[in-house]
Amino acid sequence: MSGSLDAHRAERPWDPAAHNMVALIARKRGGGALSDAELGWLCQGYVAGRIPDYQVAAWLMAVCCRGMDEAETLALTRAMVATGATLDWSHLAATPVDKHSTGGVGDKTSLVLVPLMAAAGLPFVKMSGRGLGHTGGTLDKLESIAGFRTELTPPEMRTQVERIGCALVGQSPELVPGDKLLYALRDVTGTVDCLPLIASSIMSKKLAAGAPVVVLDVKFGAGAFMREVETARELARAMVRIGEGAGRRVRAVLSAMDEPLGRSVGHALEVREAIESLHGRGPADLWALTLELGTNLLLLSGAERDARGARQRLEQLQASGAAAERFAALIEAQGGDPGVVEDPDRLPAAPVVTTFDAPQREVRWVGSADARRIGEAALALGAGRRTKDDTIDLAVGIRLLRKTGDRVEPGEPLAEIHARTDADARAAAEVLRAAYTLEHEPATPAPVRYETVGGEG
Amino acid sequence: MSGSLDAHRAERPWDPAAHNMVALIARKRGGGALSDAELGWLCQGYVAGRIPDYQVAAWLMAVCCRGMDEAETLALTRAMVATGATLDWSHLAATPVDKHSTGGVGDKTSLVLVPLMAAAGLPFVKMSGRGLGHTGGTLDKLESIAGFRTELTPPEMRTQVERIGCALVGQSPELVPGDKLLYALRDVTGTVDCLPLIASSIMSKKLAAGAPVVVLDVKFGAGAFMREVETARELARAMVRIGEGAGRRVRAVLSAMDEPLGRSVGHALEVREAIESLHGRGPADLWALTLELGTNLLLLSGAERDARGARQRLEQLQASGAAAERFAALIEAQGGDPGVVEDPDRLPAAPVVTTFDAPQREVRWVGSADARRIGEAALALGAGRRTKDDTIDLAVGIRLLRKTGDRVEPGEPLAEIHARTDADARAAAEVLRAAYTLEHEPATPAPVRYETVGGEG
Repeated sequence: MSGSLDAHRAERPWDPAAHNMVALIARKRGGGALSDAELGWLCQGYVAGRIPDYQVAAWLMAVCCRGMDEAETLALTRAMVATGATLDWSHLAATPVDKHSTGGVGDKTSLVLVPLMAAAGLPFVKMSGRGLGHTGGTLDKLESIAGFRTELTPPEMRTQVERIGCALVGQSPELVPGDKLLYALRDVTGTVDCLPLIASSIMSKKLAAGAPVVVLDVKFGAGAFMREVETARELARAMVRIGEGAGRRVRAVLSAMDEPLGRSVGHALEVREAIESLHGRGPADLWALTLELGTNLLLLSGAERDARGARQRLEQLQASGAAAERFAALIEAQGGDPGVVEDPDRLPAAPVVTTFDAPQREVRWVGSADARRIGEAALALGAGRRTKDDTIDLAVGIRLLRKTGDRVEPGEPLAEIHARTDADARAAAEVLRAAYTLEHEPATPAPVRYETVGGEG
Repeated sequence: MSGSLDAHRAERPWDPAAHNMVALIARKRGGGALSDAELGWLCQGYVAGRIPDYQVAAWLMAVCCRGMDEAETLALTRAMVATGATLDWSHLAATPVDKHSTGGVGDKTSLVLVPLMAAAGLPFVKMSGRGLGHTGGTLDKLESIAGFRTELTPPEMRTQVERIGCALVGQSPELVPGDKLLYALRDVTGTVDCLPLIASSIMSKKLAAGAPVVVLDVKFGAGAFMREVETARELARAMVRIGEGAGRRVRAVLSAMDEPLGRSVGHALEVREAIESLHGRGPADLWALTLELGTNLLLLSGAERDARGARQRLEQLQASGAAAERFAALIEAQGGDPGVVEDPDRLPAAPVVTTFDAPQREVRWVGSADARRIGEAALALGAGRRTKDDTIDLAVGIRLLRKTGDRVEPGEPLAEIHARTDADARAAAEVLRAAYTLEHEPATPAPVRYETVGGEG
């Protein structure tokens, strides 16, 4: 595929004199496509400050209104990658892997998956972001472990991966500086919600991070960025095509995000749940998703030939304690207290723990537990940021004692609220009231099935 | 009509808290419309510097891609008008009139029409712009009259109109400052060519200038901004609807701009031709268009009941010398040398006058004389600006000795080139070569018919 895309682009020779931003904007406005060289010029010029915000804003809106075809989306992604450094892992013997999630409530999968894959012999440097709005960020969660340091330089990452096979770090500012700038502009110009721009933003970071194997966790549903599975599938396809166009082995897994993943929402609570999952005591949905993503990574990297074998290997690495040990090694390597893996009570705890209870009337079954609203309840407790500069409380959060399809007796607790103050707990309970629906009949939850996109071969 | 538009808008109550620019951009991007209050907030905020260029650029591109309906276009126009002062002529006994042309090559109609209508008793303050690219500007033309001053303050305009009934002046910076800012941003963001934005930009200036009667000269063809008559008609309709929506009497005249209007292109040459036209010795097409526009103004203002009577009155004002006298009075009032009206040789003359001749081979008829290319030939002589800061040569230009349908013998002159240097003259001749096509058979020029849009009642 990448061959035919290159041939398609080669039809447009690059004329440096014609590189007038107004002409490029007008072409995009008219539904035309920009070439590799033109998008390269645009991204470099924007990062260097030669092209002003207002011209890039007009171009972004034209992209939102007219779309970008596959070749142009790949070209933009490559142009973004070229605005910064790229990491090179070719000196490693095993195949490095990477993963991206489009974000959800209670999604602590990276904390489980990264040490698990390292235990399976696949080097895994996971770069993550911070939380904003109703979803939490992996970096913030890790900082609930005393001493944990997320800002590693590329040489530090390299040394750590050579030694223990994994790292959980912040997005390096040396990679894709253009994406950060462009995203900030999209945020204030109504151009965030645009599929090719989302796909190229995500994939530019994955390409720069250098792993040849990537699995994408694309979420849909009430608590996800994309409500509809169709949109999620479209985004998954666009990202897989970019990755394949750039010569990577990529597969996307579509996963539902109607309820939170697992039972905990909030930083320390989620780290605890991830540790429990590594010990084999975690919630079924979190482990199932981890297995699905891990199996795909083993298959794509060629480390396993069939899904059943891959799955068994991962189950065994959990059962033997190898995965949990690897997480302790990762924490220690990054300056944190590895003792939390065996003693999660060392994590910060909230001073107020109350329950949110079912009403006394006879409603026996949980119909739904809305992920977005539960995320907002955690936000009300101080577990999230409403704006980029907010500080967050790492100890607070929600533990879901009942999820969709669970039976509940009148007055029984539905959730545990971990709060800083009684007032915060009451405010969160108010939000939870809107999150839970209770039914007279049991809901039949859809069987968990993961749709995968791409990654043939 | 304005009543129903108002009712339509009143359905959307204004919520000040919701006035978040990102939300407005997103609404427009989704194909929605902004309310009067929202557009007012946007325009005021932009002029005051509260809303940054990049947000306005994104909104402009969304407007270009999604369009604006009639009500929204009117609302934007009104919001633009409200960014500055408006002129009030209600103290005048007669009905003030106004005119706008979308621009063409050799278009000196304002110089003839303004004194003619003043002679007919209709007050006429015409605000004009400067030339850019292949079209000339009325202000620049007037400055070829020694001493002529185009920058009058509103009180000066008022005094002059009370005294002699007319003025030919520059766009007052106090009127519609938002239009100037918005146009400058459109110019660098690929959003110039957008019908509702063009219509509202033009009409905002007409509304602010305060005349209750407006005639719009909308040109189409090779030398016009709009090549196709359909596009010109669409723009004409949009402008008429804005004007009517704002309670003005407006009619648009569609006129062809395939060849230059008249026979002269270049500042002093065009002033000379306008004077000849006022004396009854000008080219037929210029006088015909002037009559058409003037007749519409007389009818719309109620000064005449039928077109034939209106036309006769204007013919009589030309024949009596009243119109030419009024032009002399206007020139004198604005500090210029009124002697040019009786002695146009006082206008600046170019030192080099050569001819551009037909080839010696047997081609007997002019098939076409492309307005845009003839405008470019004048530009090559120094009669125009390529960028806003260029200085222009008021004496140089082209006189067309032959136009479409004219017979020409081998080697006979087709045009006269008025140049600063021999080299300039040769360069212009090179451009003229591409402007003229010669045929073996006579072209049958389309009969001059003007389509009018709007203005019923």
